[in-house]
Amino acid sequence: MEKVLVANRGEIAVRVIRSLKEMGIPSVAIHSTADRDSLHVALADEAICIGPAKSTESYLDIDRIIAAIEVSGADAVHPGYGFLSESATFAERLEEIGVIFIGPTSETISRMGDKAEARQTMKDAGVPVIPGSDGVIDSFDEVGSVAETVGYPLVIKAVSGGGGKGMRFVHEPDQLEKAYKEAKKEAKNAFGDDRIYIEKFIEKARHIEVQVVGDGQGHAVHLYERDCSIQRNNQKLIEEAPAAILDEASRKDITERTAEAVAKLNYRGAGTVEYLYVEEEDAFYFIEMNTRIQVEHTVSEEITGVDIVRLQLEVAQGQPLELTQDDISINGFAIECRINAENPAEHFMPAPGTIETLHFGMGQGVRIDSHVYPGYMIPPHYDSMIGKVIVHAESREAAIRKMTHVLDETVIGPIHTNLDFQHYLMNHPNYRKNDVEIKFLLHNDIIGQEGE
Amino acid sequence: MEKVLVANRGEIAVRVIRSLKEMGIPSVAIHSTADRDSLHVALADEAICIGPAKSTESYLDIDRIIAAIEVSGADAVHPGYGFLSESATFAERLEEIGVIFIGPTSETISRMGDKAEARQTMKDAGVPVIPGSDGVIDSFDEVGSVAETVGYPLVIKAVSGGGGKGMRFVHEPDQLEKAYKEAKKEAKNAFGDDRIYIEKFIEKARHIEVQVVGDGQGHAVHLYERDCSIQRNNQKLIEEAPAAILDEASRKDITERTAEAVAKLNYRGAGTVEYLYVEEEDAFYFIEMNTRIQVEHTVSEEITGVDIVRLQLEVAQGQPLELTQDDISINGFAIECRINAENPAEHFMPAPGTIETLHFGMGQGVRIDSHVYPGYMIPPHYDSMIGKVIVHAESREAAIRKMTHVLDETVIGPIHTNLDFQHYLMNHPNYRKNDVEIKFLLHNDIIGQEGE
Repeated sequence: MEKVLVANRGEIAVRVIRSLKEMGIPSVAIHSTADRDSLHVALADEAICIGPAKSTESYLDIDRIIAAIEVSGADAVHPGYGFLSESATFAERLEEIGVIFIGPTSETISRMGDKAEARQTMKDAGVPVIPGSDGVIDSFDEVGSVAETVGYPLVIKAVSGGGGKGMRFVHEPDQLEKAYKEAKKEAKNAFGDDRIYIEKFIEKARHIEVQVVGDGQGHAVHLYERDCSIQRNNQKLIEEAPAAILDEASRKDITERTAEAVAKLNYRGAGTVEYLYVEEEDAFYFIEMNTRIQVEHTVSEEITGVDIVRLQLEVAQGQPLELTQDDISINGFAIECRINAENPAEHFMPAPGTIETLHFGMGQGVRIDSHVYPGYMIPPHYDSMIGKVIVHAESREAAIRKMTHVLDETVIGPIHTNLDFQHYLMNHPNYRKNDVEIKFLLHNDIIGQEGE
Repeated sequence: MEKVLVANRGEIAVRVIRSLKEMGIPSVAIHSTADRDSLHVALADEAICIGPAKSTESYLDIDRIIAAIEVSGADAVHPGYGFLSESATFAERLEEIGVIFIGPTSETISRMGDKAEARQTMKDAGVPVIPGSDGVIDSFDEVGSVAETVGYPLVIKAVSGGGGKGMRFVHEPDQLEKAYKEAKKEAKNAFGDDRIYIEKFIEKARHIEVQVVGDGQGHAVHLYERDCSIQRNNQKLIEEAPAAILDEASRKDITERTAEAVAKLNYRGAGTVEYLYVEEEDAFYFIEMNTRIQVEHTVSEEITGVDIVRLQLEVAQGQPLELTQDDISINGFAIECRINAENPAEHFMPAPGTIETLHFGMGQGVRIDSHVYPGYMIPPHYDSMIGKVIVHAESREAAIRKMTHVLDETVIGPIHTNLDFQHYLMNHPNYRKNDVEIKFLLHNDIIGQEGE
């Protein structure tokens, strides 16, 4: 690669540019008018303003980004996470003009973006999936027979679904027909696609995901797993690596099966295979595969010492993976807390504004990934994450102790942040005991339902 | 330990307090009036002002510190580095009142503080020393016979010496008598002690030091070695771990011999055994042993994953070392750059003042140990170090690349700092090739002699 355009903003743009600098590859930042003073703009070798604050006219506007690629002469694009990172259309457009998309092929993105197809693909590749229909259900007759096999409670989901739209929980056979019809109608209205599928409803589970990297040449490795069970409205708040709940046998089994499946798919790039983990059954159920770098990749980097962004760049330019699975081992324990500009006392309402005071706790085993600085104005147009505090220690207990004092030491003002909330979670007895699941915050009355 | 008083200031006080927090041990900061707004004061559980800015009336005043110990009820004292960290008198006073000195016994400090005795002790314990007189020389006759054995050039040094006082270089036998007399006279005047000893003069060498920790119960381990050859006026500027110049056999030999010697001495605490290393001979020569934590302990922590301050606390309270040598291995490569508030363009004159702008480069493999924050006023009374930037990567080359971009990203203003100077050194071709020795800066005309 001669020059890489980073099609993103915020901390992930900074993160990518830092790896580019270490690899000696010139970087191009793109930014909206709202992000002129952003750190990623300052750090990149070149910066191009591509449009107004509104994402759809800047970070999501493929034509404008392609114009910036042409103007800068970049021969590769790193999409970060969010925005266009999982847009098959964007990847395809780049493939057409001979620019490297740092991620999988558009065909892979497209396949993994279709929930039913992703499930079938991963099932065929040997990954455990949630019992349910094998793909789309075409008739109510089929719904009945699948429901009988799967059992109750079950959930009907829209193939193009998201945000709970087109989704219905069914607790007994009587409710099945009504739920089926409603789900199809809602999906049609929301997505213009009324295809649905059925899954067993898992009431209590952890979110455990496996980080993988493949070279598109038949070779793939895993970087072990993360436990991201602490979530608010499906938004991860705290991520850990490895998952302390797993014993060695379960860890070995799920990580190896996942890496094998990814190798079988001839996957290129970094990716995450997400599972629900039911502790009582010691069972994993595939949820989805994210075909991009994730916010929480850092904890996997901390325990393995691997630079995942560098691996992304290497495999994207056609290098075979030099890393073998034997090179990768778990060293200690890492925790990441996402620091958001939001007000926990006001239902976590985003709290944009200017950061006047800023001091992160630092020292041994502390990593800060952030794009903010004293005087930085958080624009109201994008997500509220202003940084990630990552700690690395010898055990989960030691990492929690370290995170507690790092959060204690951190000062961000005068804007509202979730710092105190994260500190509270670190000290919650159930969190400390690792007695959590994905609805932990809700079930412990720590937060209310969305909109409450 | 129930409560630890940290008898220091600046980044090392912050460093120690962070480990205390992780261990759940309450901390007491002491401070001068000039350090009221220091980070170590803010982070500690309690803080006691012990006197005016002048060190001799605060951080060096044993009586005032003992008063603070009594007021706070602390049962242990961490001395940091500098100030009273190698004062046998201070350690002895604490021993007398039954307060734990977090370091070796006063007897050990005293023995290692006497250069001739330290040399003899380490020689007896099996550590290679610079050829020279075995201890103090009592007559000019003896000078002659030692000189004949040692050969020329040689150096006459004062037992109580420091800062080049009482030191004479002798290139041929004719100069011997004059040099001997001058050295004795100068030593008498400077230190009230005219005892001298003789050593072979080593013209070109690296500074390589071995980090050790002993439990005072016969067990000691090493945490491998550091190369601290980049110095200005005997002040280390850049430190690396491990020493890239050593092959595995030399590394194994010197680190194991050092750990064995330290175990034989029944040493308690963290310490550093410093050597000159002559590359052409693949030979080590003992310089001195520092009986305290050092500024550059961080690079050893990065490559081994060990918290050295925690080990200090554990062995000080009488715990046997749980770590065995087999538990400790080298992972990657670490570099530390000391960031000083000084003006390289004005002969590195200290540049105290208020820090208005502050942003450290951060991210994967970056550790910042510092006590400064935006708005912090660097007092003119103490040393000019305002922080340490430490990077950890898979190799020396990768660490240099990382350090380069971290320094690039770091902004400290409006005071003068050596940031650009460190950046320049990182890019110096000889530094990059690791073709350096302790007079590297001088011999490459990068800096002038002191006072030039």
